[in-house]
Amino acid sequence: MAGRWKNPTELTPVAGNGLLDRRMLLSSGMMFAGAAAVSAAAPTGAAAEPLANDPWSLTPGAPIPPYSTPAHPEAAKIAHLVVQNNGIGTSQARTPHHLLDGIITPNGVHYVVARAGAPDIDPDKYRLVVHGMVRQPLEFSLNDLMRYPMESHVRFLECGGNSAPMWSKTPLQGTVQQLHGLLSCSEWGGIRVSTLLDEAGADPGASWVIAEGADGVTMQRSIPMTKIMDDAVIAFYQNGEPLMPWNGYPMRLFLPGYEGNMNVKWLRRLMVTDQPVMAINESRQYTELLDSGKAWRFYYPQEVKSVITRPSPMMTMPSPGYYQISGIAWSGHGRIEKVDVSADGGKSWARAALQAPVLPKALTRFRMPWNWTGQPAVVMSRATDEAGNVQPTRQQLIAQRGEPRNTPNINGFPMEHVNQISSWAIGANGAVTHVYV
Amino acid sequence: MAGRWKNPTELTPVAGNGLLDRRMLLSSGMMFAGAAAVSAAAPTGAAAEPLANDPWSLTPGAPIPPYSTPAHPEAAKIAHLVVQNNGIGTSQARTPHHLLDGIITPNGVHYVVARAGAPDIDPDKYRLVVHGMVRQPLEFSLNDLMRYPMESHVRFLECGGNSAPMWSKTPLQGTVQQLHGLLSCSEWGGIRVSTLLDEAGADPGASWVIAEGADGVTMQRSIPMTKIMDDAVIAFYQNGEPLMPWNGYPMRLFLPGYEGNMNVKWLRRLMVTDQPVMAINESRQYTELLDSGKAWRFYYPQEVKSVITRPSPMMTMPSPGYYQISGIAWSGHGRIEKVDVSADGGKSWARAALQAPVLPKALTRFRMPWNWTGQPAVVMSRATDEAGNVQPTRQQLIAQRGEPRNTPNINGFPMEHVNQISSWAIGANGAVTHVYV
Repeated sequence: MAGRWKNPTELTPVAGNGLLDRRMLLSSGMMFAGAAAVSAAAPTGAAAEPLANDPWSLTPGAPIPPYSTPAHPEAAKIAHLVVQNNGIGTSQARTPHHLLDGIITPNGVHYVVARAGAPDIDPDKYRLVVHGMVRQPLEFSLNDLMRYPMESHVRFLECGGNSAPMWSKTPLQGTVQQLHGLLSCSEWGGIRVSTLLDEAGADPGASWVIAEGADGVTMQRSIPMTKIMDDAVIAFYQNGEPLMPWNGYPMRLFLPGYEGNMNVKWLRRLMVTDQPVMAINESRQYTELLDSGKAWRFYYPQEVKSVITRPSPMMTMPSPGYYQISGIAWSGHGRIEKVDVSADGGKSWARAALQAPVLPKALTRFRMPWNWTGQPAVVMSRATDEAGNVQPTRQQLIAQRGEPRNTPNINGFPMEHVNQISSWAIGANGAVTHVYV
Repeated sequence: MAGRWKNPTELTPVAGNGLLDRRMLLSSGMMFAGAAAVSAAAPTGAAAEPLANDPWSLTPGAPIPPYSTPAHPEAAKIAHLVVQNNGIGTSQARTPHHLLDGIITPNGVHYVVARAGAPDIDPDKYRLVVHGMVRQPLEFSLNDLMRYPMESHVRFLECGGNSAPMWSKTPLQGTVQQLHGLLSCSEWGGIRVSTLLDEAGADPGASWVIAEGADGVTMQRSIPMTKIMDDAVIAFYQNGEPLMPWNGYPMRLFLPGYEGNMNVKWLRRLMVTDQPVMAINESRQYTELLDSGKAWRFYYPQEVKSVITRPSPMMTMPSPGYYQISGIAWSGHGRIEKVDVSADGGKSWARAALQAPVLPKALTRFRMPWNWTGQPAVVMSRATDEAGNVQPTRQQLIAQRGEPRNTPNINGFPMEHVNQISSWAIGANGAVTHVYV
């Protein structure tokens, strides 16, 4: 084991409790044998003598289906965590980030919040109407829109109520899927809303666009004209294929960086106007009542946030030694500038490696080499975006927003836009739990 | 219709038959009304009066499933084109690129070539063995490997036999899925093979690594050590989730830019050695017999290629006017440098816009604004990669490889590594067909 190879457990940490320099991830000649099972029974010959066959190698395998879905036994795990209301009332489905890696969320488990299920839309009969303060109202079929200039970008989408369980008075125990699963990231393809408004001839005095969905609750949201003309898109494609039914098929509004609810699904109308519509989702829901009796309204961009997905609560670390801490960071204000990681509950921090390409308003995967000594530790991540916003501690968020009320239910939404630092404790037995530090 | 708005049909073309400057895609104030249905019956009021409700807006919609799949009626179209052999013999499944946009291929329709279906592997019992010319043979469980340094990259994967139907003596009529569907692009996540070879202590005299799969045919391929140490990965994740069963669950070799067959699925062994294994897939298949009686062997990178996906064969363009020509380009030698498009059968060319980010060894989406006059036209795309390789014409490829034999069957593989320019003719009636120019 001697010679040019180095064991990461022998490297000098760059911060407390065994965090290693992120540049180690680029080095070669590392020995991870502490983590790997070494078998003297493995074959050693230079000829390709047969390995013993497992049963699955002895029979023809499963034929190719028209549309692939995960393997058993992954199928039971790579799944939405659904709070179902059978199509009536609000249903939610959360993305299993604790089981994923990279930045793309596969379409099978993109998060969903739906108030009346997914309408069964006939794409041939579907129409989008653009009207209101315009020179010429327009009506478009899906085939009409397919001829317009299209573009595609990898962007995150997050419910304004994501991470709400983190606002409980005491730390709720759940997976990252339960705690932060109303968040996903896809390549979204579509046409600029500004292209359609140019064509309709929007009145220069107009300052809002009311977007309306074709779902059973006729979802409406008011979008500032500045956002519409900046980067708003009517999306038809999600990771290359037409939108999933629960993500708005055949088309949805997409507002990069803005809270999910505004990205109106099953979009059927854009009304140009000079005032917001004050729909239920902007007057009652997605409005934050403060202790002062005043309320926050129309606060659209999702704040800078990050979370460590591995290790994370409900997991158990099998033994001390080398691990890669892996997580995701994002901000509605642009690119992630850096992510700092702590393994000692915030006493010391070190810079994580960011997986390239780092894209604006997209998930960014961060990675941090770590030698876990086997002693209790608390791992945390803190993201900073290119606008200089720093993810706040829980104490800083409380100072800003008031003391939390309690949360009786991990599926509740006690507060919108919660972006505090998440802290995961590792016990001497390797068990990972959610803690407040 | 007057004033500051311009109609793209009135712009001066930059090349024959109506190709427009790609910078038009960045401009505003365009009028596409020629392509859009304008309805005088659309609402004009400034108040949000109700639209007439379609039937799908009047009932609760579909509840959220554990794992989302495409909507009816898309489900029948967004599907593999499968040549099935019920798990025995070679089955293929092709990606429906003519229906997709962007660069990511959704996992449901990633292409597959499998010789014995997908083995039903128990991840808890699964082992990867590294042996041969090493200091210490190693055996890894999936849990062992999950602790290693991981990385993720968006990369294309293409069968060496992709585009083989283009080599027929007469142009075969089929969709882009039929003609070029053994190609996909995903975010692949995993660990560097070099990390495991460092740990095992590969002999400096070793020049090859034999990769072996756990499928029923025990697929073997010989990989040059230079590629292994450069950027070879053992992939566990595909667009964020564990690999699909037909794409190698729980792990596969991934060799960025190299022909698909070498990216051994259901990877169970890496044997370090000083000679290739000369397996059937490198001595008989994936070897090109030339007219001279000699054969091409071990020619690994996929050559620079592009194809227009919209419009494309079997489609019909509904009427003259504005369209966006959309397509994909890729090269096993690195980034796409540029894509030129012709609408007059190669007489004149103009530069297409490339969708950012342009990533190495990944699909690149190109887009070209076009005013179709309604006259017959032939659209073509020609990609150039950063190494300076230019996609050849059919005549250039014939000069290099010899006259093609005929192809009785669109699913056949008359030749490997076909990368000639594809030409799609648009008739005066709007019908799109495959032609040789």
